[in-house]
Amino acid sequence: MARQVHVNGRWLPEGEASVSVFDRGFLMADGVYEVTSVLDGRLVDFAGHMARLRRSLAALSMDLPLDDAALLALHREAVARNALSEGMVYLQVTRGAPPERDFAWPDPPVPPTLVLFTQAKPGLARGPERGIGVISIPDLRWARRDIKTVQLLYPSWGKMIARGRGADDAWMVEDGLVTEGTSNNAWIVAGGRLVTRPPSEAILSGITRAAVLRLVAEAGLSLEERPFTLAEAQAADEAFVTSATTFVLPVVRIDDRPVGGGSPGPVAARLRALYVEEARRSAV
Amino acid sequence: MARQVHVNGRWLPEGEASVSVFDRGFLMADGVYEVTSVLDGRLVDFAGHMARLRRSLAALSMDLPLDDAALLALHREAVARNALSEGMVYLQVTRGAPPERDFAWPDPPVPPTLVLFTQAKPGLARGPERGIGVISIPDLRWARRDIKTVQLLYPSWGKMIARGRGADDAWMVEDGLVTEGTSNNAWIVAGGRLVTRPPSEAILSGITRAAVLRLVAEAGLSLEERPFTLAEAQAADEAFVTSATTFVLPVVRIDDRPVGGGSPGPVAARLRALYVEEARRSAV
Repeated sequence: MARQVHVNGRWLPEGEASVSVFDRGFLMADGVYEVTSVLDGRLVDFAGHMARLRRSLAALSMDLPLDDAALLALHREAVARNALSEGMVYLQVTRGAPPERDFAWPDPPVPPTLVLFTQAKPGLARGPERGIGVISIPDLRWARRDIKTVQLLYPSWGKMIARGRGADDAWMVEDGLVTEGTSNNAWIVAGGRLVTRPPSEAILSGITRAAVLRLVAEAGLSLEERPFTLAEAQAADEAFVTSATTFVLPVVRIDDRPVGGGSPGPVAARLRALYVEEARRSAV
Repeated sequence: MARQVHVNGRWLPEGEASVSVFDRGFLMADGVYEVTSVLDGRLVDFAGHMARLRRSLAALSMDLPLDDAALLALHREAVARNALSEGMVYLQVTRGAPPERDFAWPDPPVPPTLVLFTQAKPGLARGPERGIGVISIPDLRWARRDIKTVQLLYPSWGKMIARGRGADDAWMVEDGLVTEGTSNNAWIVAGGRLVTRPPSEAILSGITRAAVLRLVAEAGLSLEERPFTLAEAQAADEAFVTSATTFVLPVVRIDDRPVGGGSPGPVAARLRALYVEEARRSAV
């Protein structure tokens, strides 16, 4: 059965779900998005994702005339219509489709475009059988990575560069310091401490990152929120990434160097277990 | 009568011209574009725009299975179907609409998405009645501005910041040097010489910029291809911008400083006249 996709108030079979060629998301990447994981048919970290969506919209002076209850109802309808048990709900909002292409924002404003669709990922909670290898690439993205925009050309390209070199993903490096992965936050475990970069305009403030931070004390760990270098990461006891769709995923190789013996470590495993438990408990 | 828009081989009324929500142009800004001006119903600098399109596509390993003759035929059909005399043809190519959203490029590849539409601009060749005022903003864009991608969120935002401050447009500044305008290349006239930034990954290599460079000698001017500072521009005899849709447009104010007495100068006027003459002569 065709997936049901939401576009501006209508539910359509995926093959018919479309937006105007004049949509500013298509012409100018003038849009933001969120991806919310689904476990047991329920939404993980939903409030966090919607709070970040509001921050992204506010940063770009974009309107969305739907409150969080309406957005929750839409997410739940997406899950229900598609009988989704494990996977994700993707939501995108753009500045709408004015009658003409213009760098200037539409005046008067036009209604925003709202798209939601689901992606099934059976086995999402079961977790990875192995860690991933990453390569380092220079961080060439724009400067406001705290806003979750659809300007994903470089992260996508970076992932392909990584695959071309036999790796799974890329970590981006700026001024000698790791910023983040192409679609995840980067962490290391060194000297008995968790180290991850503090939120700023240089990285996306991960919702899963924030959830894992709340589990650090519970896991009996201590934390240092600071940027780290690639060499530090290569010499670390463990490395991992966090994201809404991978939860906590071990990194076992960085460029040509194995990390922590080249196998997933206990800290990542422990944080992943705690995160999935908490995610299931608090999902809505 | 509704405008006729080309989408993947079909001509559609503008209200029906759409792309899939799974189009990578919409979800990931994974697309490139060109804007070609039309004078007297003919295409200006067409070969230059198509050559740059090929460079953009090649940089991103994107395919477009149409040769320049086919693209010319499409442009001409867009002009004819819309009875366009003065204005522009917008062309966008994306990496297509795979069945799923994924940072990785579609494997196997899917056909690219191709969209063309026209915009009428009566009076395009007549030229501006006054110069424009610009403000300076930091250049926050990604590092590969030589590729003409649809990642236009910041240039668009910059234009709105400019309007909010009572100006017409913004010049972007990086490391103390002007890179370019939000949708144009920046030039100054100082000490009897034209100064404009050389092509690099920091700016778009303007097709109109290149055409104007070819007219410098004819205009009896000399040229210095180098970056310049904002202070230099403010102290210059003239400043102007070049783009496919504004040709040569005087800049008479930069931030709070008038340039060259605050009125359009003779060099910009002369280059504009020469450019429009050459554009009409060589249009196809």
